Amino acid sequence: MSEHKLEQQWTPELLEFHEELQSKNMGPLWASVFSSSQPTPRAIPYLWKKQLILDMLEKAKNLLQVGTGSIDRRAVYLVNPGMKYLQPHGWGGATQTLYAAVQALNPGEIAPPHRHMTSALRFIMEGKGASGVVNGVKYNFEPGDYVITPEWCWHDHINEGDETVLWMDCLDIPFTSALTSSFFEMYPASQQPIDFPEDYGTKRYAGGMVRPISDRKPSPAPLGRYTWDLTKQAIDGQSQFEPDPYDGFAVEYINPSTGKDANGRIGARMQGLPVGFKGKAHRHTHSSVYVVHKGKGYTVINGERFDWEAGDFFVVPVWAVHEHVNTSETEEAFLFSTNDLPIMELFGFEREEAYSENEGYQVIEK
Amino acid sequence: MSEHKLEQQWTPELLEFHEELQSKNMGPLWASVFSSSQPTPRAIPYLWKKQLILDMLEKAKNLLQVGTGSIDRRAVYLVNPGMKYLQPHGWGGATQTLYAAVQALNPGEIAPPHRHMTSALRFIMEGKGASGVVNGVKYNFEPGDYVITPEWCWHDHINEGDETVLWMDCLDIPFTSALTSSFFEMYPASQQPIDFPEDYGTKRYAGGMVRPISDRKPSPAPLGRYTWDLTKQAIDGQSQFEPDPYDGFAVEYINPSTGKDANGRIGARMQGLPVGFKGKAHRHTHSSVYVVHKGKGYTVINGERFDWEAGDFFVVPVWAVHEHVNTSETEEAFLFSTNDLPIMELFGFEREEAYSENEGYQVIEK
Amino acid sequence: MSEHKLEQQWTPELLEFHEELQSKNMGPLWASVFSSSQPTPRAIPYLWKKQLILDMLEKAKNLLQVGTGSIDRRAVYLVNPGMKYLQPHGWGGATQTLYAAVQALNPGEIAPPHRHMTSALRFIMEGKGASGVVNGVKYNFEPGDYVITPEWCWHDHINEGDETVLWMDCLDIPFTSALTSSFFEMYPASQQPIDFPEDYGTKRYAGGMVRPISDRKPSPAPLGRYTWDLTKQAIDGQSQFEPDPYDGFAVEYINPSTGKDANGRIGARMQGLPVGFKGKAHRHTHSSVYVVHKGKGYTVINGERFDWEAGDFFVVPVWAVHEHVNTSETEEAFLFSTNDLPIMELFGFEREEAYSENEGYQVIEK
Amino acid sequence: MSEHKLEQQWTPELLEFHEELQSKNMGPLWASVFSSSQPTPRAIPYLWKKQLILDMLEKAKNLLQVGTGSIDRRAVYLVNPGMKYLQPHGWGGATQTLYAAVQALNPGEIAPPHRHMTSALRFIMEGKGASGVVNGVKYNFEPGDYVITPEWCWHDHINEGDETVLWMDCLDIPFTSALTSSFFEMYPASQQPIDFPEDYGTKRYAGGMVRPISDRKPSPAPLGRYTWDLTKQAIDGQSQFEPDPYDGFAVEYINPSTGKDANGRIGARMQGLPVGFKGKAHRHTHSSVYVVHKGKGYTVINGERFDWEAGDFFVVPVWAVHEHVNTSETEEAFLFSTNDLPIMELFGFEREEAYSENEGYQVIEK
Ligand SMILES: [Fe+2]
Ligand SMILES: [Fe+2]
Ligand SMILES: [Fe+2]
Ligand SMILES: [Fe+2]
Ligand SMILES: [Fe+2]
Ligand SMILES: [Fe+2]
Ligand SMILES: [Fe+2]
Ligand SMILES: [Fe+2]
Repeated sequence: MSEHKLEQQWTPELLEFHEELQSKNMGPLWASVFSSSQPTPRAIPYLWKKQLILDMLEKAKNLLQVGTGSIDRRAVYLVNPGMKYLQPHGWGGATQTLYAAVQALNPGEIAPPHRHMTSALRFIMEGKGASGVVNGVKYNFEPGDYVITPEWCWHDHINEGDETVLWMDCLDIPFTSALTSSFFEMYPASQQPIDFPEDYGTKRYAGGMVRPISDRKPSPAPLGRYTWDLTKQAIDGQSQFEPDPYDGFAVEYINPSTGKDANGRIGARMQGLPVGFKGKAHRHTHSSVYVVHKGKGYTVINGERFDWEAGDFFVVPVWAVHEHVNTSETEEAFLFSTNDLPIMELFGFEREEAYSENEGYQVIEK
Repeated sequence: MSEHKLEQQWTPELLEFHEELQSKNMGPLWASVFSSSQPTPRAIPYLWKKQLILDMLEKAKNLLQVGTGSIDRRAVYLVNPGMKYLQPHGWGGATQTLYAAVQALNPGEIAPPHRHMTSALRFIMEGKGASGVVNGVKYNFEPGDYVITPEWCWHDHINEGDETVLWMDCLDIPFTSALTSSFFEMYPASQQPIDFPEDYGTKRYAGGMVRPISDRKPSPAPLGRYTWDLTKQAIDGQSQFEPDPYDGFAVEYINPSTGKDANGRIGARMQGLPVGFKGKAHRHTHSSVYVVHKGKGYTVINGERFDWEAGDFFVVPVWAVHEHVNTSETEEAFLFSTNDLPIMELFGFEREEAYSENEGYQVIEK
Repeated sequence: MSEHKLEQQWTPELLEFHEELQSKNMGPLWASVFSSSQPTPRAIPYLWKKQLILDMLEKAKNLLQVGTGSIDRRAVYLVNPGMKYLQPHGWGGATQTLYAAVQALNPGEIAPPHRHMTSALRFIMEGKGASGVVNGVKYNFEPGDYVITPEWCWHDHINEGDETVLWMDCLDIPFTSALTSSFFEMYPASQQPIDFPEDYGTKRYAGGMVRPISDRKPSPAPLGRYTWDLTKQAIDGQSQFEPDPYDGFAVEYINPSTGKDANGRIGARMQGLPVGFKGKAHRHTHSSVYVVHKGKGYTVINGERFDWEAGDFFVVPVWAVHEHVNTSETEEAFLFSTNDLPIMELFGFEREEAYSENEGYQVIEK
Repeated sequence: MSEHKLEQQWTPELLEFHEELQSKNMGPLWASVFSSSQPTPRAIPYLWKKQLILDMLEKAKNLLQVGTGSIDRRAVYLVNPGMKYLQPHGWGGATQTLYAAVQALNPGEIAPPHRHMTSALRFIMEGKGASGVVNGVKYNFEPGDYVITPEWCWHDHINEGDETVLWMDCLDIPFTSALTSSFFEMYPASQQPIDFPEDYGTKRYAGGMVRPISDRKPSPAPLGRYTWDLTKQAIDGQSQFEPDPYDGFAVEYINPSTGKDANGRIGARMQGLPVGFKGKAHRHTHSSVYVVHKGKGYTVINGERFDWEAGDFFVVPVWAVHEHVNTSETEEAFLFSTNDLPIMELFGFEREEAYSENEGYQVIEK
């Protein structure tokens, strides 16, 4: 609130008093900065190039085995430079609520089962032959698929193919780190039993906005894997009309038993930016982590231009002004992203604002 | 409660007293029958043959024009024999909550716009070239489509083709008749303006369990028309697994912004009965109206066998034991049905019970 | 919809066709009256005098015993003259959804336990010494108390005092009669065991808008009896301010674990009309049954004046214009009422409209 | 997850690789500690003595004026020693989600109006004559009252009496600091206009579990001030029965229009510990900040004994085992506390566990 305290003098006595308070595990509200008129994110806009991530994973492949008795998961995660002071490891924050990583699973490896109260999701980037087992259902991974692991579901990953498979992991680790109330449990065997037919949920939701009658009662993951084919078909359906001025042809994945986000606390979207798309700028309270699924272009965030192509990751922090542009003359671009909109909405924090200056487009400053 | 009043004598004095009460607009609780241990539906199991309905519509076609200044809708509705005493018109009841009719629209006719608090839906039976406009969106009708008109949405129908188009209408007229609190309004013109591209909702929901991001906020009809193609694809996806013992491969239509029934107070399902399907018997509190979309078979309801083929209608009343059988050796049967499950659930009335005698199959008594 | 079908001639052929349809258990939509622009209640405004009800109960006392082996309940219920054609017994309708009765329990009598899916509530009118047991908690009855028996709770009543105790019973029998899906069960003994201290819920909610921490999870009846003392105190608190123009100082009873109506499907209110109160007229979709707790005055309903005093009952049907007046020069009047607002709201049927003519007051026509 | 990675060697190459990752704003999941089997709070059990806080406020009174142009609020807040590394100011954390402070307002001072997305509440500790204005309603403060300021409500405080008034402030500043998405706004004048009668909400909720009919629609603060008298009366009602084994006679403040916590994201309770009360130990995911309203006793938290008397503050962190004891032989003790249970529940994080060793009581280690 300091911006409003105009006439108070920070006298030596007062400064001494502030130190006394601190020594007694107390603090002076009048000298604090808890209230700013607008959000003040710690996370900054940032982009990680695909090649950098691949290089790191290549090293990790050589240095580490995955499996029971070895490491659980071979994944490198993204640390937002603005959050590094949060010990340990910047709380794994790509944004203030979202952890994002790229995981590589080599042929023959098994990432053993566990479960946790942090919510997890995967977006498959490259490679075939891997799959994940979530609460007894095996879901095959293909590029472009979105696969969910809601809180406290058992999950393990297997690569039965002959190439390395890469995917994005997103969890709400920074959020659960802030709440310090999460649980984690290892499964008592090196793999879960598979209790259902392969891709059970996915096949039962093979078409239409309809639901097997047995799934009427809300459950966390009636449909575990959202295939790229169907998502693409949905975006193609939209693209007969005008794109959203900010986000192009964008869909969000839903839980068919609730109509809410597929993965509870973490929202996820796929957006298609058609050839020639030059999005307008806006900002909102929720933050996002993007991975480029296909195509190339750039995003301007708080006046800084970030060029991207397939496999790159970037973050749009809380309240950062941003606009997306497809620079290809021939190809639609597809951006997958995750967000903390469900958290913001549950607590009434969500606000959105169009950028009104300069006809709605930012001036690029770097 | 009379079943429990064993020792009370119905003396002449008492009977006289009962009459006195009646004359004073009162009644004796002890001599009433408000509480029975189990539901006592007035509606009875019943089947209407397609040909009968067609014959009636043929007459109606010759006798009546549809349009502004003429009649609003050319539809004949089904009156459950058990409900006829409810004046007027058995409250339009096929069951105690559901009205069902078949509507015929000739080439060139326009059924003018109106809206009402009763909820309405259509299932397209035969013919091409017709469409409905719901709150400014034109939805084309093709056989097998499910089209919704939630409460208080403006709607009109047009036949721009060259053949008569037939569809089932289902509304909750008996329910709103019981509540006596419904409103109805004519549109101040003979047609609504069309404010959106054709089949707007349907095209925006062309694939996957995903939703345009602009439809995140709950709304009554983000998707107005559920096409047969996608519904069929969904049922085909299920049919790789074991069918539900009672209902085969069954889906229910959902509102993607809520995960609830597409049409609010009226549930709707499509169920595929594979070749050789002989369903087990059960009963439940909700009632249903069926129209046979394809195939042939029979349904046993409370011990009575009702044979059906495409275009036939039949009803399963509250708490009636029923089982479905596909008698074709070559073709899957498809049953479309509507139900009052949303009403039963909202008030905690829904119960279900498997039929346990005779290994789960009823003895056919007629 | 007939009001809109101007040019269609009701020819002899057509009338014959209508009869043919009827004979085949079908009906002509174009000749039906399912849609009226405004609600058309069957129930009419009506008032039952206390003395009439007492006289009837007096006869019933002489003619009938209450108890196991005798009758279950000695209650005379109110039948709305407009609903008599509904067989049997006008569906027990005081309005289209609400049953209302007065029950008399003599010293020493026990009304044996049962439960039902119809929801029940009581308003204690006269006498001391009786109590009700609801799911193992004994609640003492005192005049002015509101006591609930939500659906499927076991309940029995006992009179351990030395005077006859009278109370209003209100259930949603007409509503469950329309749905035909209700269950009823007798308790396998002549009394329930009492598992909790007397007036357990009431004592645990002895003050403030606070809740025992163990009642955080929603439950149907954390508080079973709402005493007159506390309700009166609440109304007195309000009466330091301006009364509501239609209803005076009015409160509704709530379930502290949900903030919704205390009794689920049936709303209940107590309203204080101060000396000199002359309420304005309005109408709304929900219907109400009133019992006068104290005082005297009149209510104008659809232009007809109904004078009332303590113990009288009257009904305000769906969409009926009504206004309340206290005619005493010295005493506040108190009206207890029940309503179907929860049902209307759940389905989006509720509408309200101020009466705008004649400065907001009706002309009394009878 | 490190606890499970038994065989992986932390070789020099690997350690070097970890540093490389860090330099590139990335991290090695396999060497992180994001998943522990149980919650690992940063906040520690801690107690602040009333006298210490009073001493600090005394200094603050001499050094600072409150008012427009001076400081906004004279409050010293509690900083949990375990959270100090969070810059700035330990995010104002008494626990990981809750900020707690004591505010002093001298006669004649006005703490000017503002509003914020952080949720706020007050518990009045000492002194009379002060009041708070929340969205145009003036609420008088008396010791033992609980007063709410839900998010984004304008609020200011005034002392029109002749003594200093002290109260506890509790906000969810650490939580909103973690989310970095909060807004704050100063009111454009030095005081809000008062639009309603004094203590409007409180007087309208003067008794019973009933609600003015105009408050049926959910709103954030229908009742702004929960008086000590009514809360005491509620606890006295409970105390006719067995106390809760952990918490004695405990109530939580509710919003009458929702049945949820009075203050949305922050729960609040008052608990009475009768003479002789020796609570059993348990732990739960939610954290709490306590202020002793009356009496004396101690609380054992994770084996450490904290003795308290009126005016002392202490915190029970996430998952800390704790038990409360009243040591007075004559007086009931009253503990007011705030908690983050609403946040934990909304996300499914809440778990509770009874302490099972040593017959349910901890061994005091310090
Ligand atoms: Fe995991
Ligand atoms: Fe955006
Ligand atoms: Fe219609
Ligand atoms: Fe069925
Ligand atoms: Fe009963
Ligand atoms: Fe009214
Ligand atoms: Fe504030
Ligand atoms: Fe506790």
